[in-house]
Amino acid sequence: MRSLLALLSSSVSSGHHLFSRLRTCRSSTLAHHVLFSRRGVAMNASEEILRIALAEKQSAVEAQGNAVREMKSAGAAKPDIDAAIEALNGLKLEKASIERQLQAAVSGSESSLTREAFRQAVANTLERRLFYIPSFKIYRGVAGLYDYGPPGCAVKSNVLAFWRQHFVLEENMLEVDCPCVTPEIVLKASGHVDKFTDLMVKDEKTGSCYRADHLLKDFCNEKLQKDLGISPEKAAELKHVLAVLDDLSTEELGAKIKEYGITAPDTKNPLSDPYPFNLMFQTSIGPSGLSPGYMRPETAQGIFVNFKDLYYYNGNKLPFAAAQIGQAFRNEISPRQGLLRVREFTLAEIEHFVDPENKAHLKFSEVANLEFLMFPREEQMSGHSAKRIPLGEAVSRGIVNNETLGYFIGRVYLFLTCLGIDKNRLRFRQHLANEMAHYAADCWDAEIECSYGWIECVGIADRSAYDLRAHSEKSGVPLVAQEKFPEPREVEKLVIDPVKKELGLAFKGNQRMVVEALEAMNEKEALGMKDTLESKGEIEFYVCTLKKNVTIKKDMVTISKEIKKEHHRVFTPSVIEPSFGIGRIIFCLFEHSFYMRPSKAGDEELNVFRFLPLVAPIKCSVFPLVKEQQYEEVAKVISQSLTTVGISHKMDITGTSIGKKYARTDELGVPFAITVDSTSSVTIRERDSKDQVRVDVEKVASIVKEVTDGRRMWADVWSTFPHHIPLDLGNE
Amino acid sequence: MRSLLALLSSSVSSGHHLFSRLRTCRSSTLAHHVLFSRRGVAMNASEEILRIALAEKQSAVEAQGNAVREMKSAGAAKPDIDAAIEALNGLKLEKASIERQLQAAVSGSESSLTREAFRQAVANTLERRLFYIPSFKIYRGVAGLYDYGPPGCAVKSNVLAFWRQHFVLEENMLEVDCPCVTPEIVLKASGHVDKFTDLMVKDEKTGSCYRADHLLKDFCNEKLQKDLGISPEKAAELKHVLAVLDDLSTEELGAKIKEYGITAPDTKNPLSDPYPFNLMFQTSIGPSGLSPGYMRPETAQGIFVNFKDLYYYNGNKLPFAAAQIGQAFRNEISPRQGLLRVREFTLAEIEHFVDPENKAHLKFSEVANLEFLMFPREEQMSGHSAKRIPLGEAVSRGIVNNETLGYFIGRVYLFLTCLGIDKNRLRFRQHLANEMAHYAADCWDAEIECSYGWIECVGIADRSAYDLRAHSEKSGVPLVAQEKFPEPREVEKLVIDPVKKELGLAFKGNQRMVVEALEAMNEKEALGMKDTLESKGEIEFYVCTLKKNVTIKKDMVTISKEIKKEHHRVFTPSVIEPSFGIGRIIFCLFEHSFYMRPSKAGDEELNVFRFLPLVAPIKCSVFPLVKEQQYEEVAKVISQSLTTVGISHKMDITGTSIGKKYARTDELGVPFAITVDSTSSVTIRERDSKDQVRVDVEKVASIVKEVTDGRRMWADVWSTFPHHIPLDLGNE
Repeated sequence: MRSLLALLSSSVSSGHHLFSRLRTCRSSTLAHHVLFSRRGVAMNASEEILRIALAEKQSAVEAQGNAVREMKSAGAAKPDIDAAIEALNGLKLEKASIERQLQAAVSGSESSLTREAFRQAVANTLERRLFYIPSFKIYRGVAGLYDYGPPGCAVKSNVLAFWRQHFVLEENMLEVDCPCVTPEIVLKASGHVDKFTDLMVKDEKTGSCYRADHLLKDFCNEKLQKDLGISPEKAAELKHVLAVLDDLSTEELGAKIKEYGITAPDTKNPLSDPYPFNLMFQTSIGPSGLSPGYMRPETAQGIFVNFKDLYYYNGNKLPFAAAQIGQAFRNEISPRQGLLRVREFTLAEIEHFVDPENKAHLKFSEVANLEFLMFPREEQMSGHSAKRIPLGEAVSRGIVNNETLGYFIGRVYLFLTCLGIDKNRLRFRQHLANEMAHYAADCWDAEIECSYGWIECVGIADRSAYDLRAHSEKSGVPLVAQEKFPEPREVEKLVIDPVKKELGLAFKGNQRMVVEALEAMNEKEALGMKDTLESKGEIEFYVCTLKKNVTIKKDMVTISKEIKKEHHRVFTPSVIEPSFGIGRIIFCLFEHSFYMRPSKAGDEELNVFRFLPLVAPIKCSVFPLVKEQQYEEVAKVISQSLTTVGISHKMDITGTSIGKKYARTDELGVPFAITVDSTSSVTIRERDSKDQVRVDVEKVASIVKEVTDGRRMWADVWSTFPHHIPLDLGNE
Repeated sequence: MRSLLALLSSSVSSGHHLFSRLRTCRSSTLAHHVLFSRRGVAMNASEEILRIALAEKQSAVEAQGNAVREMKSAGAAKPDIDAAIEALNGLKLEKASIERQLQAAVSGSESSLTREAFRQAVANTLERRLFYIPSFKIYRGVAGLYDYGPPGCAVKSNVLAFWRQHFVLEENMLEVDCPCVTPEIVLKASGHVDKFTDLMVKDEKTGSCYRADHLLKDFCNEKLQKDLGISPEKAAELKHVLAVLDDLSTEELGAKIKEYGITAPDTKNPLSDPYPFNLMFQTSIGPSGLSPGYMRPETAQGIFVNFKDLYYYNGNKLPFAAAQIGQAFRNEISPRQGLLRVREFTLAEIEHFVDPENKAHLKFSEVANLEFLMFPREEQMSGHSAKRIPLGEAVSRGIVNNETLGYFIGRVYLFLTCLGIDKNRLRFRQHLANEMAHYAADCWDAEIECSYGWIECVGIADRSAYDLRAHSEKSGVPLVAQEKFPEPREVEKLVIDPVKKELGLAFKGNQRMVVEALEAMNEKEALGMKDTLESKGEIEFYVCTLKKNVTIKKDMVTISKEIKKEHHRVFTPSVIEPSFGIGRIIFCLFEHSFYMRPSKAGDEELNVFRFLPLVAPIKCSVFPLVKEQQYEEVAKVISQSLTTVGISHKMDITGTSIGKKYARTDELGVPFAITVDSTSSVTIRERDSKDQVRVDVEKVASIVKEVTDGRRMWADVWSTFPHHIPLDLGNE
């Protein structure tokens, strides 16, 4: 069996499509889940053994079948034939058993059916309760576009508010807000115009478009899962294709599609050769048609082009971070994976600018003791799994490149777990060498496990000086920082001093070209010339702008090394970029928060979102126990006081049973319910425990405020106030 | 003199371009300031008198000049000639005086120069302190696109947070979040694809594009302001053109441009005829090129298409409101007015759905006593100015169409003034009949006065059932509400029952057309036919699909009125739409908050933004009085406790003088400054009064929290704590 390592290293060599994929990853945090698919497809030992056993058993069945037929035609004795048939049936049973084992091995330990059923249960609840709505639904929608309905929108706005608190406020970041419409030159400089592409094939008859890699991937997966009879060699080949899928060139991808005879999935028509399709939505700025523009594929560029002003705003001091929350756009070829791969999404991005010679972080000690699942490059290459490593150790051992990168990994961990992401289904995976752009120093993805597998939700990359340099070059505006030395430093510098008078006499009209060529020499060339001039008095020198050699004499140039005093250094800062796919985080949060529990009567399963108060779309509901005017009056007073303290809530004064009302709001993830069953005191119920306490009407709003703000724990409320045992909750 | 009323009524008749202009207004709240320009250009009495006087004086000067020349050529006596010259000079002086008066009258009472200087002072401060940055500045920018830099972004996020609190939370609105990318069919239904246009002309040689109405407007204004010698008739004509500018047809606008010989402003080249240019940014969804899409020009459509789901979410009950905050896009032909007319902007829109038969509002009494500047249609038409009217009175007298519209006007007033908009420079102006779409019941704009004049910042329109009907028709999905009657109601209904057998015999193949025509009769026609059939036995009946009369006999149709019991009614809700141009509100807020005051030394003018804590980008600054380590330590402790209570702040530990530090943060509108001048107590300074109190280090964060949250007034802090008199503030 070809080892995983071999598969991976073979993919490294064909990584020339990398930049486009990386921009793809980094810009939208819509990763290709390289590792997940690799780990998913890498053949494990038992699977290979089973495939070989199956092939052997298949041969044995065929041989025995032939033997039976031969015996029959040769007119063998019946007992002999019966014995041979029995042996054949035994072989067939053994084969069937191996097939079952192989099927189980291929599907993985957790049945993909269970995963899909769970996903469907969550999705149904989310759509029914309007967390999401397929956009423009009455016009049959548009693939890859979703609305956040009222509760989804509230969750999103809570997540963004917490992001601002956790990152922008805590770290004193400079938040900016730039337009989505972006002129072409900016995205030329960033590389998006040329490289932000996916490979596409067209149905040659209908013109329908497909992502080339998706078709090949689907073909291989289906073959592996449904066609158990393929040879172990064929299976290994298909798995290899899956492993190197992201690294295949346009031609290689086209050749594989041809080789496997893959056709358009909807029509079975032949497909075109693959060709790159730019994923940006294009438009035109102004009426002339002469200014092409694009809807930004990421928010980061808006920060980079403002570096100079932001650096000035920060008192010309490094490090500092700028941040931006905003919409980004990707014109996906054929969006799949529902809410995870969409054509418009909210990004929250941080660009932390730092001196490349000093990537220490003042506050690193605050996160150094955190310990969580990390999945370093080496563990991935050697086939191990993610493991818990203290962050301080990861940095000190050099697993994480530097303190600043480590600091942000820690802050991202805290951000996600504070939102309610399950820390056992969260890992930080390091990019493999072939996943990273050549300029990147290190890159880690926060991956969250959901029903689609491990999904990249945050990318944290040390992008070195790449982006600022690209915009400096394109715009001609230097995007640099200065370090003033406390004391001037002595630096040895090469000085090339062409003697223009002599050069003019010798080369007349060509003087300028010769001077420029002399000045352009690097240190090695210049010192070589100096030696030769000193020993031989002259030297032949190739001037590329003249396309010929000229003779340089000793008196035509002086070359020396001088000690110079420097008072400062000028450099392009490195940037460390945590980039958050807000929609993906929210989707995973929904899955991690969802559970079902039986109703009190036991006749149905009720859905619950166990949202923390921080993210819950509505913090509290207010119900009169029964439809009575005095209770309704009290409910209205409580509602008013909740509004005053800024607690979003929902009042329900319909005649529905209290149990049904609880079930309805549990399904929205409302953490607390106030039930009015008297005019002086009311009950507060906590969603997950269903525990209830009794409190005074006057106090209820401030207590709910305290527990939703996180200033007081429910356990404390529970131990402070009298417990309330409900008589009958109807449907609950 | 043609009266203002005459000017206005003449413009009413040519209002067939209305819809497009209104969509323009409503979608972006970037109004055409119809009234402002009208009021600005309507000739007032004194101006017309001056123009007539100037023309008379000019004639007199010419006549006297001729007289002098004649006397000279006739050889009159010198004393006579001298006297005549003296009279001529007197007339010239009088003419010059009238010219000066006229110039003053044309420029208005407040000099436009002062306005522009003020605008420039504010803009300089805003750009220097990075409230705004021209987008993609290092690439020389793109007209009509601006970034919010750090303090601008913070102000915007505060304004939006307050908007959510004031509207969404207080009113329990259903907030949604829909994509910007919108398929064509949605904007076909809304009318944007066909009508969301401005008229454009092209420089015939260079291809540069201009807005046709802008060129004509500039021409007229310049003529009126700089060419004082034009006849009163000509002046009246130009003013009339300005008044009806928005109502001119494509052809009329083209004719005027030709008549006045207007050329391209940059090159003086001839111009093309005007033609409509759609203001939406167009793009293509997916790779096929077959699905055109646009960047939404407003957020409202996302709400309308979701009406059915939202109505269900609200328990199938009216009224309810949905809200959305998001980016909107307008591909302006040639953006002017800097930050007011931009190509991408943030809108916050509310769609309040209500039963058209009951537009009362439960909470109207809460705003009925508000009294502020209102500018009803009638006052505008009769040339009066805006006046203070109690809102309750405005609704009860029918000036404002209904309570719900009135309620939102009141809530918008509270929103804007709570932000810090000067209530004396805020008015609510009713749309004139010709400004409103035919379907609108009433429409009011919140206009804020800034250096550009009165600017529409919020539009509050009762749009009746227009939008929901348009999407119902286009999508085929009924967007309706139901009212269940408590008791069934008896309704008299017309029943037309064609007798198909007889009609078939008489009309054969044409039977279906006749049946359809009979069924399509309205009540009056049907009852007329019934009478005639009863009296004469037959009737001639025109069938439009057959384009001829047929004879209907008594046995061919029965017509009757029946009493039917109805248990509910189905109707399309009306929508009341407050639509907020967030960028415009913020711009006006900046101008209303800006002032200058002399430095303590009196040698320079210092800029201050008097932001309320609610909107201030940074709530507090922390300075050590002098650069000393123990003070810096205290400053850091205070900074940490401010972060803990969620107060955004800025620490400045540079060696700059304390006066300079105050000046720097005053210019950012930071309301409070904490100065560390001991290790046990510190001072808090209030920005506008410059008053300082002394408080304990432990208490300072919670005091600042109280005053910035609005739970405590500065006056109370000032009277509670010992006052601190600074010794010397250096530059302050």
